[in-house]
Amino acid sequence: MGHTYQEDYTISFELSDTNGNLKLPPFLSVLLEVSGHHSAQLGRSDVYVLENYGYVWIVTDYEFDIVRLPKFSEKVVIRTEAISYNKLICHRRFEVLDDKEDLLIRVESYFALMDLENRKIVVVPDDLLEPYQSEKVKKIARGAKYPSLEEPERSSYHVRYLDIDMNGHVNNSKYLDWMYDVLGYAFLKQHVPSHIHLKYSREVSPGGDISSEFVRDGLVSHHQICSDGQINAQAIITWRKQ
Amino acid sequence: MGHTYQEDYTISFELSDTNGNLKLPPFLSVLLEVSGHHSAQLGRSDVYVLENYGYVWIVTDYEFDIVRLPKFSEKVVIRTEAISYNKLICHRRFEVLDDKEDLLIRVESYFALMDLENRKIVVVPDDLLEPYQSEKVKKIARGAKYPSLEEPERSSYHVRYLDIDMNGHVNNSKYLDWMYDVLGYAFLKQHVPSHIHLKYSREVSPGGDISSEFVRDGLVSHHQICSDGQINAQAIITWRKQ
Repeated sequence: MGHTYQEDYTISFELSDTNGNLKLPPFLSVLLEVSGHHSAQLGRSDVYVLENYGYVWIVTDYEFDIVRLPKFSEKVVIRTEAISYNKLICHRRFEVLDDKEDLLIRVESYFALMDLENRKIVVVPDDLLEPYQSEKVKKIARGAKYPSLEEPERSSYHVRYLDIDMNGHVNNSKYLDWMYDVLGYAFLKQHVPSHIHLKYSREVSPGGDISSEFVRDGLVSHHQICSDGQINAQAIITWRKQ
Repeated sequence: MGHTYQEDYTISFELSDTNGNLKLPPFLSVLLEVSGHHSAQLGRSDVYVLENYGYVWIVTDYEFDIVRLPKFSEKVVIRTEAISYNKLICHRRFEVLDDKEDLLIRVESYFALMDLENRKIVVVPDDLLEPYQSEKVKKIARGAKYPSLEEPERSSYHVRYLDIDMNGHVNNSKYLDWMYDVLGYAFLKQHVPSHIHLKYSREVSPGGDISSEFVRDGLVSHHQICSDGQINAQAIITWRKQ
């Protein structure tokens, strides 16, 4: 078992949608903050990693299982565990629990390390990972099959200045934001996600526009974010009526 | 003096812009969370106010004095004081202080109470305000003169599902986000705000588009957010080169 860490968290007004449910896309940032605190506690803060290695963490894939979205003002526990790693990928789990410790959301997340200078993915150094007590493994199963979308509906979004983070790339949570938004107010008002596969494959550059494309077949929506003729991110979201 | 409250806060990666400076628009949500905690501590949580009065707080005006934007991973203190109130308006001050207690940002904010049922502004009940120990005053000076903009540059933005909060209106921080964004990447990368007047006058409705309009005269930019031929919000921002 890897090292675990947990924090109490209260769902704020700002993170509640018009139905009073947790807004999932910006919650990705909260999860990353919690893992950041975990790492800092282990002496592996983002600043430490950058100063000592010249590396930054990037997320490559997420998988969400959502039993129930927590509601506005609900007190939850966010628990995270550094499960395992191999040469290039680290697997971290997040669990969001209610006040009876029942599972609300489980998130499997997969991280890689990027050399900030040349923006290349690097081999995970054992000494950097040591305090996490993660198991070193050969292979990490992740992701899903993302079919190419045929005649998707599409909307264009301008990449805003504030969408760009300190690494000079678009914040992770924005991709899911763009994917949600194309589904339209009426659909989102009446549905909540129950399962999400999300994969990041290529950074969106600052300043331009992206195309958020989707095909929805009943309660399953397939998404891709494209720019400059290439795919930046893909997702498959399963919804349920609320 | 009104009741004061403070919290430690560390500037997260998610709240840092591409220069490593605090992103001010989403920080508005942090300030509102802090005032929410303050109110909860005094037995006047948003839930309490909604359940006992049927009211929600809305911000009408902000004024920011920015000595220096805190940087990524900087530890600050957010201090807030419920200064005064009159029949319709409550004045709350926020101060962001560095680790030497030097002032980084001062924010004067002005709130009104809205009846959620009919969406009308109501008279502030004395018993609701009592625990804040705010001075009851006749008149509260606020705001600025916002000139009407002649031949502004404008960009259109779609109101996204996640821009809408639990009150069914666009989250406060979005207006400033739209105002920033029209100034363009090159300008924002090289300038930081030193003073901001921001006024909310009319809710933006979910689902439509807004026009973010501005005239920039050197280091002062005048902004308005418009929809359906009416002004929703206005701002005057003074910038300095960084």
